[in-house]
Amino acid sequence: MNQPSPEHARQMANAIRMLAVDAVEQAKSGHPGAPMGMADIAEVLWHRHLRHNPANPRWPDRDRFVLSNGHGSMLLYALLHLTGYDLPIAELKAFRQLHSKTAGHPEVGVTPGVETTTGPLGQGITNAVGMALAEKLLAAEFNRSADGVDHTIVDHFTYAFAGDGCLMEGISHEACSLAGTLRLSKLVLLYDDNGISIDGHVGGWFTDDTPKRFEAYGWHVIAAVDGHDPAAVDASLHAARAQAVRPDGRPTLICCKTVIGMGSPGKAGTHDVHGAALGAAEVAATRAALGWTAAPFDVPRDIACAWDARERGAAAERSWRMRFEAYRSAFPDAADEFERRITGRLLPALADQLPSLLAAIADRPQALATRKASQNVLDVLAPLVPELFGGSADLTGSNLTNFQGCVTAGRDRWGNYLSYGVREFGMAAIMNGMALHGGYLPYGGTFLTFSDYSRNAIRMAALMKIRVIHVFTHDSIGLGEDGPTHQSVEHIPSLRIIPGLDVWRPADGLETAVAWVSAIARQDGPSVLCLSRQNLPRLTSIGQVSAIERGGYVLSGMEGAQAVILSTGSELALAMAAQARLACEGIATQVVSMPCTNVFDRQSLAYQEEVLPLALPAVAIEAAQPDFWHKYVGRGGLVIGMTRFGESAPAQDLYPHFGITTQRAVEAVRRLVHGTAYAEAARSAESVVLEGQ
Amino acid sequence: MNQPSPEHARQMANAIRMLAVDAVEQAKSGHPGAPMGMADIAEVLWHRHLRHNPANPRWPDRDRFVLSNGHGSMLLYALLHLTGYDLPIAELKAFRQLHSKTAGHPEVGVTPGVETTTGPLGQGITNAVGMALAEKLLAAEFNRSADGVDHTIVDHFTYAFAGDGCLMEGISHEACSLAGTLRLSKLVLLYDDNGISIDGHVGGWFTDDTPKRFEAYGWHVIAAVDGHDPAAVDASLHAARAQAVRPDGRPTLICCKTVIGMGSPGKAGTHDVHGAALGAAEVAATRAALGWTAAPFDVPRDIACAWDARERGAAAERSWRMRFEAYRSAFPDAADEFERRITGRLLPALADQLPSLLAAIADRPQALATRKASQNVLDVLAPLVPELFGGSADLTGSNLTNFQGCVTAGRDRWGNYLSYGVREFGMAAIMNGMALHGGYLPYGGTFLTFSDYSRNAIRMAALMKIRVIHVFTHDSIGLGEDGPTHQSVEHIPSLRIIPGLDVWRPADGLETAVAWVSAIARQDGPSVLCLSRQNLPRLTSIGQVSAIERGGYVLSGMEGAQAVILSTGSELALAMAAQARLACEGIATQVVSMPCTNVFDRQSLAYQEEVLPLALPAVAIEAAQPDFWHKYVGRGGLVIGMTRFGESAPAQDLYPHFGITTQRAVEAVRRLVHGTAYAEAARSAESVVLEGQ
Repeated sequence: MNQPSPEHARQMANAIRMLAVDAVEQAKSGHPGAPMGMADIAEVLWHRHLRHNPANPRWPDRDRFVLSNGHGSMLLYALLHLTGYDLPIAELKAFRQLHSKTAGHPEVGVTPGVETTTGPLGQGITNAVGMALAEKLLAAEFNRSADGVDHTIVDHFTYAFAGDGCLMEGISHEACSLAGTLRLSKLVLLYDDNGISIDGHVGGWFTDDTPKRFEAYGWHVIAAVDGHDPAAVDASLHAARAQAVRPDGRPTLICCKTVIGMGSPGKAGTHDVHGAALGAAEVAATRAALGWTAAPFDVPRDIACAWDARERGAAAERSWRMRFEAYRSAFPDAADEFERRITGRLLPALADQLPSLLAAIADRPQALATRKASQNVLDVLAPLVPELFGGSADLTGSNLTNFQGCVTAGRDRWGNYLSYGVREFGMAAIMNGMALHGGYLPYGGTFLTFSDYSRNAIRMAALMKIRVIHVFTHDSIGLGEDGPTHQSVEHIPSLRIIPGLDVWRPADGLETAVAWVSAIARQDGPSVLCLSRQNLPRLTSIGQVSAIERGGYVLSGMEGAQAVILSTGSELALAMAAQARLACEGIATQVVSMPCTNVFDRQSLAYQEEVLPLALPAVAIEAAQPDFWHKYVGRGGLVIGMTRFGESAPAQDLYPHFGITTQRAVEAVRRLVHGTAYAEAARSAESVVLEGQ
Repeated sequence: MNQPSPEHARQMANAIRMLAVDAVEQAKSGHPGAPMGMADIAEVLWHRHLRHNPANPRWPDRDRFVLSNGHGSMLLYALLHLTGYDLPIAELKAFRQLHSKTAGHPEVGVTPGVETTTGPLGQGITNAVGMALAEKLLAAEFNRSADGVDHTIVDHFTYAFAGDGCLMEGISHEACSLAGTLRLSKLVLLYDDNGISIDGHVGGWFTDDTPKRFEAYGWHVIAAVDGHDPAAVDASLHAARAQAVRPDGRPTLICCKTVIGMGSPGKAGTHDVHGAALGAAEVAATRAALGWTAAPFDVPRDIACAWDARERGAAAERSWRMRFEAYRSAFPDAADEFERRITGRLLPALADQLPSLLAAIADRPQALATRKASQNVLDVLAPLVPELFGGSADLTGSNLTNFQGCVTAGRDRWGNYLSYGVREFGMAAIMNGMALHGGYLPYGGTFLTFSDYSRNAIRMAALMKIRVIHVFTHDSIGLGEDGPTHQSVEHIPSLRIIPGLDVWRPADGLETAVAWVSAIARQDGPSVLCLSRQNLPRLTSIGQVSAIERGGYVLSGMEGAQAVILSTGSELALAMAAQARLACEGIATQVVSMPCTNVFDRQSLAYQEEVLPLALPAVAIEAAQPDFWHKYVGRGGLVIGMTRFGESAPAQDLYPHFGITTQRAVEAVRRLVHGTAYAEAARSAESVVLEGQ
């Protein structure tokens, strides 16, 4: 690619610096330090190495670029603007303003060319690992030879920028350790080693020998590169790319020594330049120091021309499209499948065969743990959803996330399953990266309690509206002997309130199947499946599939119902038993199963009223923190739940210990129906939570 | 200490093995693999090095021991039983049963001698870092010389066991990197390198060069120790202890190569032995292979005698107490202060001076961000609470967690503040370790959104009932331009439902002060302070202190109130403005400030009814996910909140954008009072959440 003169390279980098400075100054908010410090590196990578097409940010085989230090967003916006993406200067002028395409941190789906939303440190690196993994797997799956010709349609790099903050975060260990083990050689991480974080010089809290650390992970490390010497950066990128194609290729870390805020005569090298506008005087001084005479937001024509990557990008994509057409000629089915996989459409066969699959599941009468039911579902769905890419954070045999015929991916082996190791957060953010890359629908398992570890990555998936599926098993005190450290109490309600996340807690095999199908069919966000360790009886039948799909439904109605009993998952059987006992006493009730409150909330008001009539008092029973359920049962309704942490004991001892019983549900309905509770106990939200001694 | 013969050492280790095997077999649940694999290491550490007194698990200068791989709990229970703690064999026979002292994972407060609750991997190591840090700081603060005599009253080691899982977890990177930087030389980590995790041999997912990794952190690493050779383990522990006292001493990692399930002829070295009972036949085979002829739960007398550490422990503590009395003679005030600090009592001066301090705060009329108000409170409280140990995950200048005269701790410098680096989870679990050690009351800051990263450690603090304080600033869309990745939406309600955690969201300076004092005074659990980035007006006065302390109170009542307006933090001013506007229309309302729902829930029902009369319709307004508030406003009440993620824009643009406005509150009350909403809109919980376009 183009090799600009040193002076030209400097001016190109300065264009980034000044756009960042001017935009932050205009917004009076933002982070100029990282864009100024990394401008020279960015010039080399984006101008001389990155293969991308500004006119088509969705070209499947583009190189991926991740700004893991997302607070340096103006670096990326400047690059996108300069290289020719649909990000006009007016957007840069509206940096960090409402409805602009230049949010405070880069957001995928908002700004063309942004590959992932970054800001929460460490996750960008991890998304990049996921992208590099997806590339490697897709290449193994789709690239092939015919008649002595190599048809290579998947072959791109993933580049990431990261600062000290990303490397301090624990998730960087999880992701980079795994990337080393898997030898993701086409991953190149450029470390902005500027020695400054928000509290000041990092020497007081971050003294890692980072090259040595990454060598310990099995990375190819290029240490001590001057990040302001374009020739040195260029050479290191060439070295990274050269070793990537070697049989023993490894991911590359390029450690670039830089000065934060480079170009600002008064603030460079200090944390003052990290996260605040320079101020008018220092902006002027910076202009002078850089010899930059153009007005704010103006880029001299020759610099702008040099940056413009549209022609080069179009040519690169054209060349790939020709290769893809040759591939299509040789392997028409594979070409179709590749296109389907990249666009995320489901195989038509899934819809065709679904009714009979569900009918078969509904026909099985035996009690099953929903984690086992989930595995059964995977066994039948996996052949119809070949984009599924499973895994577990070292709990495969407990989560039952593997399926018949699944292949575990390894260093030199394609697979559609991964043992992520004990790395919950890393797994979740790698899954996000794979989903963003395209070609795979990732799901991964751990115990529900450890959703805490990965929580922010789940949130990020919801914010990015991407399709990943979390399989969280051992979802309550039903887990038993492992005790309170492993028993979720607050997790289900706390996941339900993450905007855009669908949280399923199915009660039996059929609800589990519907949950899986809904999660797979959902195109605009992540889903969570909360599954039981212990066996649960069959409660639903094939006629209820469309009701289950609505997230909440009347599982068992009765003429003249006087109260609603609302439940989910492992407690639904208790609700059904309570209904039967109450019926003997002449109290008619309506049992509502609510496997996914998020989906239920999207139903019409009329439907919701039908399921949960406002006129009826309601009891909810769920082995989880109870506060959430007042949304549906009101202040006067009764909730049977867990207001304390669990205990270590067999599950059958814990349910009575905590009062999560049929008897309690019966008593609660009696109190409501006979009016003793609804008026009095309801005086306090606390008092209407029932629990054992 | 005692140096047993090789054969005797082997038998002592086998006692651990068989107690673990028998207990897991009896429970039909548990993890025999790690206790069997680490038994030889445990014999060497506990019998030959650990300084502890089984009769007094609270002796302040005991060595600390942390089983970070907490699933191997039977290892610890066996050790506690054998060395003479109050853990009779009957408790081991009741392993993992309800009300036993032998929970599935070790729990502090349940079992004498357990120093921290472990199970969630990686956190035990991190607690140990916190304990070692507390030891180093306390030693610097209290040890002193007089008349040429060194009075050393704080001088102990912290030992931790960890497996592959702990070292894969990201938090191990955060904790061990910081421990290296701080040169916590009296921390010794024994790594059980057995090459097996639950998914099988770790070679497929964990290939770190762990010695090299820890060298990169600046640790003293002893690699390639045979974990079944007591002499080798003994030598490595001597080496660790010897270098700990050198001026350049570093924390030590001892890498012990072991065989998981060592002793089980059929299952050793496989993941089958990790987490399940061996089964009767294999138990018998193990007995035979080990030459262990004693009955289940029986330990031959000579082995039992060899293990009994009570006499040695009593002597060790006696010796320390003599030193402490000499210290008391030389430094009576320091001795009193040390005892106060270790027991966790507050200085009487705090209570004495509190009224005047609060009055002074109440006298300040100016608008302040509650994060700034928090810093003001720290400035006046810190001298009265010298056990406060502050810090931030690299956001000191944003969290405003530092205070006048605070000293930042460093490698060779005592301090009462720490820049933890960008390590939220590590910070939280280190704080837990410091609180468990005693002597300090740790608090630490980050942005509220990143409470996600540390969430499980917050949960663990609540489970352990320990006093730590989290200062989470930038608590809502008021954060502004940094955008949705940094704006909390679901975090406040999701923290409120962690059992045992008190979540404060103060509305002004005085509420902030009361929140701080309540958190400091609380002896049985952690607290969270959610604080604003932006300025908030003064709303409360000195007469309301005792009301604020109740967590929820009528801030502004009106004769004949027709509705309640409930709010917290930065939205309370909107509620007050709505009350004023409604009053002009002739609608009387009662404004309730609810800075801590958890504390409010502990008030009497009569008080709760007074604050939130069941007869009055209610509106809640909070810039957070709204579902939680139905607990107080019922299904028919109206909640003005955030059902979507935030946006990147100035705060003053975001509030109207999301409809978090006085006008919305006014309209909501009108709807309730005029009856249009309470009956109709209330038909669906969804419909009663108001939000902007």
